[in-house]
Amino acid sequence: MGTLKRLGVFDSGLGGLTVLNEICKYNTGLDVVYFGDTARVPYGSRTVETITRYAEQDVRFLLSQGVEAILIACGTVSTNCLPSLKRSFSLPIVGVIDAGCQAALKASPSKRIGVIGTRATVNSRAYEHRIHELCPEAQTWGVECPLFVPLIENGFAPEDPITEMTVERYLSAFHGTGVDTIIMGCTHYPFLAHTLQKFMPEVTFINVGKALSYGLRESFNLPQSGAPNRVSYFVSDEDTGFLDIARRYLDAVSAENVQKVNIDQF
Amino acid sequence: MGTLKRLGVFDSGLGGLTVLNEICKYNTGLDVVYFGDTARVPYGSRTVETITRYAEQDVRFLLSQGVEAILIACGTVSTNCLPSLKRSFSLPIVGVIDAGCQAALKASPSKRIGVIGTRATVNSRAYEHRIHELCPEAQTWGVECPLFVPLIENGFAPEDPITEMTVERYLSAFHGTGVDTIIMGCTHYPFLAHTLQKFMPEVTFINVGKALSYGLRESFNLPQSGAPNRVSYFVSDEDTGFLDIARRYLDAVSAENVQKVNIDQF
Repeated sequence: MGTLKRLGVFDSGLGGLTVLNEICKYNTGLDVVYFGDTARVPYGSRTVETITRYAEQDVRFLLSQGVEAILIACGTVSTNCLPSLKRSFSLPIVGVIDAGCQAALKASPSKRIGVIGTRATVNSRAYEHRIHELCPEAQTWGVECPLFVPLIENGFAPEDPITEMTVERYLSAFHGTGVDTIIMGCTHYPFLAHTLQKFMPEVTFINVGKALSYGLRESFNLPQSGAPNRVSYFVSDEDTGFLDIARRYLDAVSAENVQKVNIDQF
Repeated sequence: MGTLKRLGVFDSGLGGLTVLNEICKYNTGLDVVYFGDTARVPYGSRTVETITRYAEQDVRFLLSQGVEAILIACGTVSTNCLPSLKRSFSLPIVGVIDAGCQAALKASPSKRIGVIGTRATVNSRAYEHRIHELCPEAQTWGVECPLFVPLIENGFAPEDPITEMTVERYLSAFHGTGVDTIIMGCTHYPFLAHTLQKFMPEVTFINVGKALSYGLRESFNLPQSGAPNRVSYFVSDEDTGFLDIARRYLDAVSAENVQKVNIDQF
Protein backbone atom coordinates (compact mmCIF):
# COMPACT_ATOMS: atom_id res chain seq x y z
CA MET A 1 0.00 0.00 0.00
CA GLY A 2 1.48 3.34 -1.11
CA THR A 3 1.43 6.48 1.00
CA LEU A 4 -2.03 8.07 1.17
CA LYS A 5 -1.82 11.22 -0.98
CA ARG A 6 -5.16 12.85 -0.28
CA LEU A 7 -7.73 12.06 2.43
CA GLY A 8 -11.39 13.13 2.30
CA VAL A 9 -13.23 13.89 5.55
CA PHE A 10 -16.92 14.75 5.77
CA ASP A 11 -19.57 15.49 8.35
CA SER A 12 -23.22 16.57 8.32
CA GLY A 13 -21.95 19.97 9.44
CA LEU A 14 -18.95 21.33 11.25
CA GLY A 15 -18.85 19.01 14.28
CA GLY A 16 -16.45 16.85 12.29
CA LEU A 17 -13.88 19.60 12.77
CA THR A 18 -13.27 18.10 16.24
CA VAL A 19 -12.19 14.88 14.50
CA LEU A 20 -10.07 16.77 11.97
CA ASN A 21 -8.47 18.65 14.88
CA GLU A 22 -7.38 15.42 16.58
CA ILE A 23 -6.12 13.90 13.32
CA CYS A 24 -4.06 16.99 12.53
CA LYS A 25 -2.71 17.13 16.08
CA TYR A 26 -1.22 13.64 15.96
CA ASN A 27 -0.12 13.36 12.31
CA THR A 28 2.02 15.36 9.83
CA GLY A 29 2.22 15.91 6.07
CA LEU A 30 -1.48 15.13 5.52
CA ASP A 31 -3.37 16.56 2.51
CA VAL A 32 -7.02 16.67 3.58
CA VAL A 33 -10.26 17.82 1.90
CA TYR A 34 -12.96 18.57 4.51
CA PHE A 35 -16.63 18.83 3.54
CA GLY A 36 -19.39 19.95 5.95
CA ASP A 37 -22.97 19.63 4.67
CA THR A 38 -24.12 22.80 6.42
CA ALA A 39 -27.06 23.31 4.01
CA ARG A 40 -28.71 20.12 5.32
CA VAL A 41 -27.40 19.79 8.89
CA PRO A 42 -28.53 18.15 11.19
CA TYR A 43 -28.66 14.58 9.86
CA GLY A 44 -29.35 12.93 13.22
CA SER A 45 -33.12 13.44 13.33
CA ARG A 46 -33.74 12.25 9.73
CA THR A 47 -34.54 8.75 8.45
CA VAL A 48 -31.81 6.28 7.43
CA GLU A 49 -32.95 6.46 3.78
CA THR A 50 -32.48 10.23 3.67
CA ILE A 51 -29.19 10.14 5.60
CA THR A 52 -27.84 7.54 3.14
CA ARG A 53 -28.83 9.63 0.11
CA TYR A 54 -27.09 12.68 1.59
CA ALA A 55 -23.96 10.68 2.53
CA GLU A 56 -23.66 9.30 -1.03
CA GLN A 57 -23.68 12.84 -2.40
CA ASP A 58 -21.02 13.83 0.14
CA VAL A 59 -18.77 10.95 -0.99
CA ARG A 60 -19.27 11.84 -4.68
CA PHE A 61 -18.21 15.41 -3.98
CA LEU A 62 -15.03 14.26 -2.22
CA LEU A 63 -14.27 11.89 -5.13
CA SER A 64 -14.50 14.89 -7.47
CA GLN A 65 -11.71 16.44 -5.38
CA GLY A 66 -9.40 13.50 -6.05
CA VAL A 67 -9.34 11.91 -2.60
CA GLU A 68 -7.99 8.34 -2.33
CA ALA A 69 -9.72 7.40 0.92
CA ILE A 70 -12.55 8.76 3.05
CA LEU A 71 -13.01 9.23 6.76
CA ILE A 72 -16.60 9.73 7.90
CA ALA A 73 -16.29 12.25 10.75
CA CYS A 74 -19.98 11.94 11.58
CA GLY A 75 -21.48 9.58 14.13
CA THR A 76 -24.86 9.48 12.41
CA VAL A 77 -23.48 8.47 8.99
CA SER A 78 -20.89 6.07 10.47
CA THR A 79 -23.55 4.22 12.44
CA ASN A 80 -26.27 4.14 9.79
CA CYS A 81 -24.61 4.04 6.36
CA LEU A 82 -21.06 2.64 6.51
CA PRO A 83 -21.84 -0.84 5.08
CA SER A 84 -23.98 0.57 2.26
CA LEU A 85 -21.38 3.22 1.37
CA LYS A 86 -18.69 0.52 1.24
CA ARG A 87 -20.87 -1.44 -1.19
CA SER A 88 -21.54 1.62 -3.38
CA PHE A 89 -17.97 2.94 -3.63
CA SER A 90 -14.67 1.18 -4.25
CA LEU A 91 -12.26 3.46 -2.34
CA PRO A 92 -11.44 2.77 1.32
CA ILE A 93 -13.99 4.31 3.72
CA VAL A 94 -13.50 4.46 7.48
CA GLY A 95 -16.06 5.45 10.12
CA VAL A 96 -15.75 6.43 13.75
CA ILE A 97 -17.43 3.43 15.40
CA ASP A 98 -14.66 0.89 15.62
CA ALA A 99 -12.03 3.23 17.08
CA GLY A 100 -14.58 4.58 19.59
CA CYS A 101 -15.55 1.09 20.77
CA GLN A 102 -11.95 -0.09 21.09
CA ALA A 103 -11.06 2.99 23.14
CA ALA A 104 -14.11 2.56 25.39
CA LEU A 105 -13.37 -1.10 26.11
CA LYS A 106 -9.76 -0.21 26.91
CA ALA A 107 -10.89 2.55 29.30
CA SER A 108 -13.66 0.62 31.08
CA PRO A 109 -12.75 -1.68 34.00
CA SER A 110 -16.38 -2.75 34.60
CA LYS A 111 -17.31 -3.10 30.89
CA ARG A 112 -20.48 -1.16 31.67
CA ILE A 113 -20.44 1.36 28.82
CA GLY A 114 -22.78 4.18 27.80
CA VAL A 115 -23.29 5.72 24.35
CA ILE A 116 -24.65 9.24 23.79
CA GLY A 117 -25.56 10.49 20.31
CA THR A 118 -28.26 11.77 17.98
CA ARG A 119 -31.56 9.93 17.70
CA ALA A 120 -30.42 8.13 14.52
CA THR A 121 -27.09 7.07 16.04
CA VAL A 122 -28.59 5.72 19.25
CA ASN A 123 -31.48 3.98 17.45
CA SER A 124 -29.03 2.25 15.10
CA ARG A 125 -27.37 0.58 18.14
CA ALA A 126 -24.22 0.38 15.98
CA TYR A 127 -21.83 1.25 18.83
CA GLU A 128 -23.54 -1.21 21.13
CA HIS A 129 -23.45 -4.05 18.58
CA ARG A 130 -19.75 -3.50 17.89
CA ILE A 131 -18.93 -3.43 21.62
CA HIS A 132 -20.73 -6.76 22.10
CA GLU A 133 -18.84 -8.26 19.13
CA LEU A 134 -15.53 -7.20 20.66
CA CYS A 135 -16.49 -8.10 24.24
CA PRO A 136 -19.59 -10.31 24.61
CA GLU A 137 -19.81 -9.80 28.39
CA ALA A 138 -19.98 -6.00 28.12
CA GLN A 139 -23.21 -4.22 29.08
CA THR A 140 -24.29 -1.12 27.17
CA TRP A 141 -26.81 1.71 27.46
CA GLY A 142 -27.64 4.20 24.68
CA VAL A 143 -29.13 7.64 25.38
CA GLU A 144 -30.21 10.03 22.61
CA CYS A 145 -29.35 13.71 23.16
CA PRO A 146 -31.02 15.50 20.21
CA LEU A 147 -30.72 19.03 21.63
CA PHE A 148 -26.90 19.03 22.00
CA VAL A 149 -26.18 19.79 18.31
CA PRO A 150 -28.65 22.71 18.08
CA LEU A 151 -27.30 24.12 21.37
CA ILE A 152 -23.72 24.04 20.08
CA GLU A 153 -24.57 25.22 16.54
CA ASN A 154 -26.58 28.14 17.98
CA GLY A 155 -23.75 29.42 20.12
CA PHE A 156 -24.80 28.29 23.61
CA ALA A 157 -21.55 28.03 25.57
CA PRO A 158 -20.69 24.75 27.37
CA GLU A 159 -20.98 26.54 30.74
CA ASP A 160 -24.33 28.23 29.92
CA PRO A 161 -27.00 27.29 32.52
CA ILE A 162 -29.31 26.13 29.69
CA THR A 163 -26.56 23.88 28.31
CA GLU A 164 -25.83 22.57 31.82
CA MET A 165 -29.50 21.82 32.55
CA THR A 166 -29.82 19.96 29.23
CA VAL A 167 -26.65 17.95 29.92
CA GLU A 168 -27.92 17.06 33.41
CA ARG A 169 -31.32 16.02 31.97
CA TYR A 170 -29.90 13.69 29.34
CA LEU A 171 -27.16 12.21 31.58
CA SER A 172 -29.68 11.47 34.34
CA ALA A 173 -30.84 8.56 32.16
CA PHE A 174 -27.63 6.76 33.19
CA HIS A 175 -28.43 6.87 36.92
CA GLY A 176 -28.37 3.36 38.37
CA THR A 177 -26.61 1.80 35.37
CA GLY A 178 -23.12 1.93 36.91
CA VAL A 179 -21.43 2.92 33.63
CA ASP A 180 -17.79 3.95 34.07
CA THR A 181 -17.22 4.96 30.44
CA ILE A 182 -19.42 6.84 27.94
CA ILE A 183 -18.72 7.15 24.21
CA MET A 184 -19.43 10.63 22.81
CA GLY A 185 -21.06 9.18 19.67
CA CYS A 186 -21.46 12.52 17.91
CA THR A 187 -18.53 14.61 16.75
CA HIS A 188 -20.09 17.81 18.14
CA TYR A 189 -20.02 16.53 21.68
CA PRO A 190 -16.32 17.13 22.48
CA PHE A 191 -17.28 20.82 22.68
CA LEU A 192 -19.35 19.81 25.74
CA ALA A 193 -16.69 17.54 27.27
CA HIS A 194 -16.06 19.67 30.37
CA THR A 195 -19.78 20.05 31.11
CA LEU A 196 -20.40 16.31 30.66
CA GLN A 197 -17.46 15.58 32.96
CA LYS A 198 -18.81 18.01 35.57
CA PHE A 199 -22.07 16.06 35.93
CA MET A 200 -20.43 12.61 35.87
CA PRO A 201 -16.92 13.24 37.29
CA GLU A 202 -16.19 9.54 37.80
CA VAL A 203 -16.90 8.59 34.19
CA THR A 204 -14.39 8.49 31.29
CA PHE A 205 -15.85 10.21 28.22
CA ILE A 206 -14.45 8.86 24.94
CA ASN A 207 -13.63 11.38 22.17
CA VAL A 208 -13.97 9.23 19.04
CA GLY A 209 -11.90 11.69 17.02
CA LYS A 210 -8.98 11.21 19.36
CA ALA A 211 -9.41 7.43 19.27
CA LEU A 212 -9.51 7.59 15.48
CA SER A 213 -6.41 9.76 15.13
CA TYR A 214 -4.36 6.75 16.25
CA GLY A 215 -6.56 4.13 14.48
CA LEU A 216 -6.05 5.90 11.16
CA ARG A 217 -2.41 4.80 11.11
CA GLU A 218 -3.53 1.17 11.16
CA SER A 219 -5.90 1.69 8.23
CA PHE A 220 -3.65 3.81 6.00
CA ASN A 221 -0.02 4.40 5.19
CA LEU A 222 0.17 8.04 6.29
CA PRO A 223 2.97 10.35 5.10
CA GLN A 224 4.24 11.49 8.56
CA SER A 225 6.70 13.65 6.62
CA GLY A 226 7.05 16.22 9.39
CA ALA A 227 5.63 18.84 7.01
CA PRO A 228 2.56 20.87 8.12
CA ASN A 229 -0.83 19.36 7.31
CA ARG A 230 -2.76 21.00 4.45
CA VAL A 231 -6.55 21.21 4.69
CA SER A 232 -9.07 22.51 2.09
CA TYR A 233 -12.44 23.38 3.60
CA PHE A 234 -15.77 23.08 1.75
CA VAL A 235 -19.34 23.61 2.99
CA SER A 236 -22.75 23.40 1.25
CA ASP A 237 -23.99 26.65 2.83
CA GLU A 238 -22.03 29.56 4.15
CA ASP A 239 -21.21 29.72 7.77
CA THR A 240 -23.72 31.25 10.15
CA GLY A 241 -21.78 31.33 13.40
CA PHE A 242 -20.48 27.88 14.20
CA LEU A 243 -17.05 28.48 12.69
CA ASP A 244 -16.41 31.14 15.33
CA ILE A 245 -17.00 28.56 18.05
CA ALA A 246 -14.85 26.03 16.21
CA ARG A 247 -11.96 28.48 15.99
CA ARG A 248 -12.27 29.32 19.67
CA TYR A 249 -12.16 25.70 20.88
CA LEU A 250 -9.91 23.96 18.33
CA ASP A 251 -6.13 24.25 18.37
CA ALA A 252 -4.78 22.25 15.44
CA VAL A 253 -6.99 23.40 12.52
CA SER A 254 -7.62 26.90 11.18
CA ALA A 255 -10.96 26.57 9.29
CA GLU A 256 -9.96 29.47 7.01
CA ASN A 257 -10.65 29.98 3.27
CA VAL A 258 -13.88 27.99 3.37
CA GLN A 259 -15.39 27.41 -0.10
CA LYS A 260 -19.05 26.77 -0.96
CA VAL A 261 -20.37 23.80 -2.98
CA ASN A 262 -23.85 23.04 -4.40
CA ILE A 263 -24.13 19.51 -3.02
CA ASP A 264 -27.42 18.75 -4.87
CA GLN A 265 -25.38 18.46 -8.08
CA PHE A 266 -23.44 15.44 -6.80
CA MET B 1 -62.00 35.83 -9.86
CA GLY B 2 -63.43 32.28 -9.67
CA THR B 3 -63.59 30.24 -6.50
CA LEU B 4 -60.19 28.90 -5.45
CA LYS B 5 -60.29 25.16 -6.18
CA ARG B 6 -57.01 23.98 -4.66
CA LEU B 7 -54.65 25.80 -2.28
CA GLY B 8 -51.01 24.82 -1.71
CA VAL B 9 -49.44 25.44 1.70
CA PHE B 10 -45.78 24.79 2.52
CA ASP B 11 -43.34 25.17 5.37
CA SER B 12 -39.72 24.23 6.05
CA GLY B 13 -41.12 21.53 8.32
CA LEU B 14 -44.25 20.95 10.28
CA GLY B 15 -44.54 24.25 12.14
CA GLY B 16 -46.77 25.42 9.30
CA LEU B 17 -49.41 23.05 10.63
CA THR B 18 -50.25 25.77 13.17
CA VAL B 19 -51.15 28.04 10.22
CA LEU B 20 -53.11 25.28 8.49
CA ASN B 21 -54.94 24.66 11.76
CA GLU B 22 -56.11 28.29 11.97
CA ILE B 23 -57.09 28.38 8.30
CA CYS B 24 -59.14 25.21 8.64
CA LYS B 25 -60.75 26.45 11.85
CA TYR B 26 -62.18 29.58 10.26
CA ASN B 27 -63.00 28.39 6.71
CA THR B 28 -64.97 25.55 5.07
CA GLY B 29 -64.90 23.56 1.83
CA LEU B 30 -61.15 24.10 1.28
CA ASP B 31 -59.07 21.63 -0.76
CA VAL B 32 -55.51 22.01 0.54
CA VAL B 33 -52.18 20.34 -0.30
CA TYR B 34 -49.69 20.73 2.58
CA PHE B 35 -45.96 20.16 2.07
CA GLY B 36 -43.41 20.12 4.93
CA ASP B 37 -39.72 19.97 3.91
CA THR B 38 -38.77 17.77 6.86
CA ALA B 39 -35.66 16.40 5.08
CA ARG B 40 -34.06 19.87 5.14
CA VAL B 41 -35.64 21.57 8.17
CA PRO B 42 -34.66 23.99 9.71
CA TYR B 43 -34.37 26.75 7.08
CA GLY B 44 -33.91 29.59 9.58
CA SER B 45 -30.16 29.23 10.16
CA ARG B 46 -29.28 28.93 6.45
CA THR B 47 -28.32 31.64 3.95
CA VAL B 48 -30.94 33.46 1.83
CA GLU B 49 -29.53 31.87 -1.35
CA THR B 50 -30.05 28.35 0.00
CA ILE B 51 -33.47 29.15 1.48
CA THR B 52 -34.60 30.54 -1.90
CA ARG B 53 -33.40 27.45 -3.78
CA TYR B 54 -35.30 25.21 -1.35
CA ALA B 55 -38.46 27.36 -1.51
CA GLU B 56 -38.48 27.22 -5.34
CA GLN B 57 -38.41 23.42 -5.20
CA ASP B 58 -41.27 23.48 -2.68
CA VAL B 59 -43.37 25.64 -5.04
CA ARG B 60 -42.62 23.38 -8.02
CA PHE B 61 -43.79 20.35 -6.05
CA LEU B 62 -47.07 22.06 -5.13
CA LEU B 63 -47.57 23.07 -8.79
CA SER B 64 -47.21 19.39 -9.72
CA GLN B 65 -50.17 18.76 -7.40
CA GLY B 66 -52.39 21.16 -9.35
CA VAL B 67 -52.67 23.98 -6.82
CA GLU B 68 -53.97 27.34 -8.08
CA ALA B 69 -52.49 29.52 -5.34
CA ILE B 70 -49.84 29.15 -2.65
CA LEU B 71 -49.67 30.19 0.96
CA ILE B 72 -46.18 30.24 2.48
CA ALA B 73 -46.73 29.05 6.05
CA CYS B 74 -43.10 29.72 6.97
CA GLY B 75 -41.78 32.91 8.48
CA THR B 76 -38.27 32.37 7.13
CA VAL B 77 -39.39 31.93 3.50
CA SER B 78 -42.03 34.68 3.71
CA THR B 79 -39.51 37.20 4.99
CA ASN B 80 -36.59 36.27 2.72
CA CYS B 81 -38.00 34.99 -0.59
CA LEU B 82 -41.53 36.27 -1.27
CA PRO B 83 -40.59 38.92 -3.89
CA SER B 84 -38.26 36.54 -5.76
CA LEU B 85 -40.84 33.72 -5.71
CA LYS B 86 -43.47 36.10 -7.10
CA ARG B 87 -41.08 36.97 -9.93
CA SER B 88 -40.31 33.31 -10.68
CA PHE B 89 -43.87 31.93 -10.66
CA SER B 90 -47.09 33.26 -12.19
CA LEU B 91 -49.65 31.90 -9.71
CA PRO B 92 -50.73 33.97 -6.68
CA ILE B 93 -48.39 33.52 -3.68
CA VAL B 94 -49.15 34.87 -0.22
CA GLY B 95 -46.81 35.04 2.78
CA VAL B 96 -47.40 35.55 6.47
CA ILE B 97 -45.80 38.97 6.93
CA ASP B 98 -48.53 41.36 5.91
CA ALA B 99 -51.30 39.76 7.97
CA GLY B 100 -48.98 39.54 10.99
CA CYS B 101 -48.02 43.22 10.77
CA GLN B 102 -51.63 44.38 10.33
CA ALA B 103 -52.72 42.35 13.36
CA ALA B 104 -49.83 43.67 15.47
CA LEU B 105 -50.57 47.31 14.63
CA LYS B 106 -54.24 46.75 15.45
CA ALA B 107 -53.33 45.18 18.82
CA SER B 108 -50.67 47.70 19.88
CA PRO B 109 -51.76 50.95 21.56
CA SER B 110 -48.17 52.24 21.97
CA LYS B 111 -46.95 51.10 18.50
CA ARG B 112 -43.88 49.68 20.23
CA ILE B 113 -43.75 46.23 18.62
CA GLY B 114 -41.38 43.27 18.96
CA VAL B 115 -40.65 40.49 16.46
CA ILE B 116 -39.31 37.07 17.44
CA GLY B 117 -38.17 34.55 14.82
CA THR B 118 -35.33 32.49 13.41
CA ARG B 119 -31.99 34.12 12.67
CA ALA B 120 -32.86 34.51 8.95
CA THR B 121 -36.29 36.03 9.68
CA VAL B 122 -34.99 38.57 12.19
CA ASN B 123 -31.95 39.49 10.07
CA SER B 124 -34.19 40.12 7.05
CA ARG B 125 -36.06 42.82 9.07
CA ALA B 126 -39.02 42.11 6.76
CA TYR B 127 -41.64 42.39 9.53
CA GLU B 128 -40.05 45.60 10.80
CA HIS B 129 -39.91 47.19 7.33
CA ARG B 130 -43.57 46.36 6.64
CA ILE B 131 -44.66 47.77 10.02
CA HIS B 132 -42.84 51.03 9.26
CA GLU B 133 -44.48 51.18 5.82
CA LEU B 134 -47.92 50.77 7.38
CA CYS B 135 -47.20 53.04 10.37
CA PRO B 136 -44.11 55.26 10.08
CA GLU B 137 -44.17 56.30 13.75
CA ALA B 138 -44.05 52.70 15.03
CA GLN B 139 -40.92 51.50 16.86
CA THR B 140 -39.76 47.90 16.43
CA TRP B 141 -37.30 45.46 18.00
CA GLY B 142 -36.32 42.08 16.48
CA VAL B 143 -34.93 39.22 18.61
CA GLU B 144 -33.68 35.95 17.10
CA CYS B 145 -34.64 32.79 18.99
CA PRO B 146 -32.80 29.99 17.13
CA LEU B 147 -33.27 27.31 19.82
CA PHE B 148 -37.09 27.39 19.86
CA VAL B 149 -37.56 25.23 16.73
CA PRO B 150 -35.12 22.50 17.85
CA LEU B 151 -36.72 22.47 21.33
CA ILE B 152 -40.20 21.98 19.85
CA GLU B 153 -39.10 19.53 17.14
CA ASN B 154 -37.26 17.43 19.76
CA GLY B 155 -40.26 17.08 22.02
CA PHE B 156 -39.45 19.51 24.84
CA ALA B 157 -42.84 20.48 26.29
CA PRO B 158 -43.77 24.19 26.56
CA GLU B 159 -43.76 23.88 30.38
CA ASP B 160 -40.38 22.06 30.56
CA PRO B 161 -37.90 24.00 32.76
CA ILE B 162 -35.37 23.97 29.89
CA THR B 163 -37.97 25.44 27.53
CA GLU B 164 -38.93 28.02 30.16
CA MET B 165 -35.33 29.05 30.81
CA THR B 166 -34.73 29.45 27.07
CA VAL B 167 -37.90 31.53 26.66
CA GLU B 168 -36.88 33.73 29.59
CA ARG B 169 -33.38 34.17 28.13
CA TYR B 170 -34.56 35.26 24.69
CA LEU B 171 -37.43 37.47 25.94
CA SER B 172 -35.10 39.27 28.37
CA ALA B 173 -33.74 41.10 25.29
CA PHE B 174 -37.00 43.10 25.29
CA HIS B 175 -36.46 44.49 28.81
CA GLY B 176 -36.58 48.29 28.74
CA THR B 177 -38.09 48.50 25.24
CA GLY B 178 -41.67 48.95 26.45
CA VAL B 179 -43.12 46.71 23.71
CA ASP B 180 -46.81 45.88 24.25
CA THR B 181 -47.14 43.51 21.27
CA ILE B 182 -44.80 40.83 19.90
CA ILE B 183 -45.22 39.06 16.55
CA MET B 184 -44.45 35.34 16.69
CA GLY B 185 -42.58 35.44 13.38
CA CYS B 186 -42.10 31.68 13.12
CA THR B 187 -44.97 29.26 12.67
CA HIS B 188 -43.58 26.90 15.32
CA TYR B 189 -43.88 29.47 18.07
CA PRO B 190 -47.65 29.19 18.75
CA PHE B 191 -46.76 25.88 20.46
CA LEU B 192 -44.91 28.04 23.02
CA ALA B 193 -47.63 30.70 23.32
CA HIS B 194 -48.53 29.96 26.97
CA THR B 195 -44.89 29.97 28.06
CA LEU B 196 -44.18 33.22 26.21
CA GLN B 197 -47.27 34.76 27.82
CA LYS B 198 -46.14 33.59 31.26
CA PHE B 199 -42.89 35.57 31.06
CA MET B 200 -44.48 38.68 29.53
CA PRO B 201 -48.08 38.61 30.81
CA GLU B 202 -48.79 42.21 29.77
CA VAL B 203 -47.80 41.66 26.12
CA THR B 204 -50.09 40.56 23.25
CA PHE B 205 -48.43 37.80 21.21
CA ILE B 206 -49.57 37.73 17.58
CA ASN B 207 -50.22 34.31 15.99
CA VAL B 208 -49.61 35.03 12.29
CA GLY B 209 -51.57 31.95 11.25
CA LYS B 210 -54.65 33.27 12.99
CA ALA B 211 -54.16 36.72 11.45
CA LEU B 212 -53.77 35.07 8.06
CA SER B 213 -56.89 32.91 8.34
CA TYR B 214 -58.95 36.08 8.03
CA GLY B 215 -56.59 37.82 5.56
CA LEU B 216 -56.89 34.88 3.16
CA ARG B 217 -60.49 35.81 2.42
CA GLU B 218 -59.32 39.18 1.11
CA SER B 219 -56.75 37.59 -1.20
CA PHE B 220 -58.85 34.74 -2.58
CA ASN B 221 -62.44 33.82 -3.36
CA LEU B 222 -62.75 30.91 -0.93
CA PRO B 223 -65.49 28.27 -1.32
CA GLN B 224 -67.02 28.58 2.22
CA SER B 225 -69.37 25.78 1.12
CA GLY B 226 -69.97 24.51 4.64
CA ALA B 227 -68.42 21.16 3.59
CA PRO B 228 -65.49 19.80 5.64
CA ASN B 229 -62.01 20.92 4.55
CA ARG B 230 -59.90 18.31 2.73
CA VAL B 231 -56.12 18.29 3.32
CA SER B 232 -53.46 16.09 1.63
CA TYR B 233 -50.22 15.93 3.62
CA PHE B 234 -46.76 15.54 2.06
CA VAL B 235 -43.29 15.58 3.67
CA SER B 236 -39.76 15.15 2.27
CA ASP B 237 -38.70 12.82 5.09
CA GLU B 238 -40.78 10.62 7.29
CA ASP B 239 -41.87 11.90 10.62
CA THR B 240 -39.56 11.50 13.57
CA GLY B 241 -41.74 12.65 16.44
CA PHE B 242 -43.05 16.10 15.69
CA LEU B 243 -46.38 14.90 14.27
CA ASP B 244 -47.25 13.50 17.71
CA ILE B 245 -46.82 16.94 19.21
CA ALA B 246 -48.80 18.51 16.37
CA ARG B 247 -51.70 16.12 16.92
CA ARG B 248 -51.66 16.82 20.66
CA TYR B 249 -51.80 20.61 20.32
CA LEU B 250 -53.83 21.17 17.13
CA ASP B 251 -57.61 20.85 17.03
CA ALA B 252 -58.70 21.53 13.42
CA VAL B 253 -56.31 19.36 11.38
CA SER B 254 -55.63 15.62 11.58
CA ALA B 255 -52.16 15.23 9.99
CA GLU B 256 -53.03 11.67 8.97
CA ASN B 257 -52.07 9.72 5.78
CA VAL B 258 -48.83 11.65 5.36
CA GLN B 259 -47.06 10.83 2.05
CA LYS B 260 -43.34 11.12 1.29
CA VAL B 261 -41.82 13.08 -1.63
CA ASN B 262 -38.23 13.27 -2.97
CA ILE B 263 -38.01 17.05 -3.07
CA ASP B 264 -34.58 17.06 -4.83
CA GLN B 265 -36.39 16.04 -8.04
CA PHE B 266 -38.37 19.29 -8.21
